[in-house]
Amino acid sequence: MTPDHLDATFAALADPTRRAILARLALGEASVMELAEPFAMTQPAISKHLKVLERAGLISRGRDAQRRPCRLEPAALGEADEWLEGYRRFWEASFQRLDVLLGELKAGEQKSERTKATRTKK
Amino acid sequence: MTPDHLDATFAALADPTRRAILARLALGEASVMELAEPFAMTQPAISKHLKVLERAGLISRGRDAQRRPCRLEPAALGEADEWLEGYRRFWEASFQRLDVLLGELKAGEQKSERTKATRTKK
Repeated sequence: MTPDHLDATFAALADPTRRAILARLALGEASVMELAEPFAMTQPAISKHLKVLERAGLISRGRDAQRRPCRLEPAALGEADEWLEGYRRFWEASFQRLDVLLGELKAGEQKSERTKATRTKK
Repeated sequence: MTPDHLDATFAALADPTRRAILARLALGEASVMELAEPFAMTQPAISKHLKVLERAGLISRGRDAQRRPCRLEPAALGEADEWLEGYRRFWEASFQRLDVLLGELKAGEQKSERTKATRTKK
């Protein structure tokens, strides 16, 4: 896994259309025409995105000259995930701190509600 | 988590210097000067990268006017990981297929080695 490869993977993922194409291909192979359909985009515009995804190794194209179906190649996603993995403990720790904070806020709210209820009873 | 936000996160990660800066900040806060040191880069060049990381919410800058130390903000990395999570079963399946293939190749190799050994004994 060279840095260049990770650069290409992350750059390819930095676009909502390209992420949507990957989501579509997760359901199965599709031709350029089938991929272009749900987007308000021309086939050449979709083809450009497919070239970026192909260069990043995120998809491959079939040999059938007519359709050249696109297929998801998940290994590059796995490599991007592996890089992120190194940071998992950081965001898990920050989410845990958020949980504690929310818990404290909730406890504080319930306490003030109980105080209010007691006052109303009086 | 808006798509724009994911775009900015993935685009920010698509650069080896920016990933190296995040790796450095995972060890603790650092000033621009401290960050520039290990790279053969000027402080303005590093500052440009820091701006990209800051806009993507991957780092924050301290208020100390002199040092403005940079700090890793891991939540955005967690969101990128969450997106990748949806594809985990795909690369896990492809890695498993690779394991099976490697296992078969290894078994084939050992078998041919045993055959060779038997032949040598004869």
